[in-house]
Amino acid sequence: MSLGLDPIGVVHSPFRQAAGTPIQATMAQGAVGTVEVFPAFSEGLKDLDGFDRIWLLYWFDRAAAPKLIVMPYMDDQPHGVFATRAPARPNPIGMSAVRLVRIDGCTLHVADVDILDGTPLLDIKPYAPQFDHLPAERTGWLEQASHRPRTADRRFEA
Amino acid sequence: MSLGLDPIGVVHSPFRQAAGTPIQATMAQGAVGTVEVFPAFSEGLKDLDGFDRIWLLYWFDRAAAPKLIVMPYMDDQPHGVFATRAPARPNPIGMSAVRLVRIDGCTLHVADVDILDGTPLLDIKPYAPQFDHLPAERTGWLEQASHRPRTADRRFEA
Repeated sequence: MSLGLDPIGVVHSPFRQAAGTPIQATMAQGAVGTVEVFPAFSEGLKDLDGFDRIWLLYWFDRAAAPKLIVMPYMDDQPHGVFATRAPARPNPIGMSAVRLVRIDGCTLHVADVDILDGTPLLDIKPYAPQFDHLPAERTGWLEQASHRPRTADRRFEA
Repeated sequence: MSLGLDPIGVVHSPFRQAAGTPIQATMAQGAVGTVEVFPAFSEGLKDLDGFDRIWLLYWFDRAAAPKLIVMPYMDDQPHGVFATRAPARPNPIGMSAVRLVRIDGCTLHVADVDILDGTPLLDIKPYAPQFDHLPAERTGWLEQASHRPRTADRRFEA
């Protein structure tokens, strides 16, 4: 079974290559960008402007081929790719909860952007604490992660 | 541009149809299920067992055709689909942060499941408060939503 996706837009950001791109939205304070939603989908944006924060789902179009074991940016030990947020995944879908600053027509002005410029956009969903703030005490290898980088390097580039 | 996905597994749950299925993981306490990861991807699960909670990304395989304006379960007013979590989306990708109870080989035992039985699994990512608990004061129409259902009905069924 193969399932097909068609992008609904494109992300624009200051980040043209993986090196120097924030590795998480929480590490991207101050980074601003825009999300261009294709006009055919504009009606779907109705009432999105009421939300402070939105999930963007997107396609890691410049990621290396999938690996099942990866060395994440934040550690010097290998881990299974599904225990990481690394982009070199079997289905290379990324998700980022960015801040929605304002909407002008089909253009969303966003902040806390950790996404490469030109990335194909797949979906937008509202972020809501009542759905997304969930209890999680144990966070595995992240608890002893050896590195605290805020930006990526080239290891997962195609 | 059309992008291709191949499922990495299947979700098993008590929910055979939309009616009666919890509409969010936060409303699914007590609902248990399993995630069967296909053996080809088992290596990617290494160290996932250290996490209390995981994101599942999956394909809404029984959702109705995409609509740009939807009436969500929680309101009696129409909203743009991207301002809702409704399944009838242009790219029908769902995301749920479920509780990971334990892993037996390629089987993940999970709780707080709000996913239909047999749903194709696309990705697994670790849930971590430092990445996923983000500030968001304004939550748009959800603040005045007229309904507080905990389970779905048939409105988005194919």
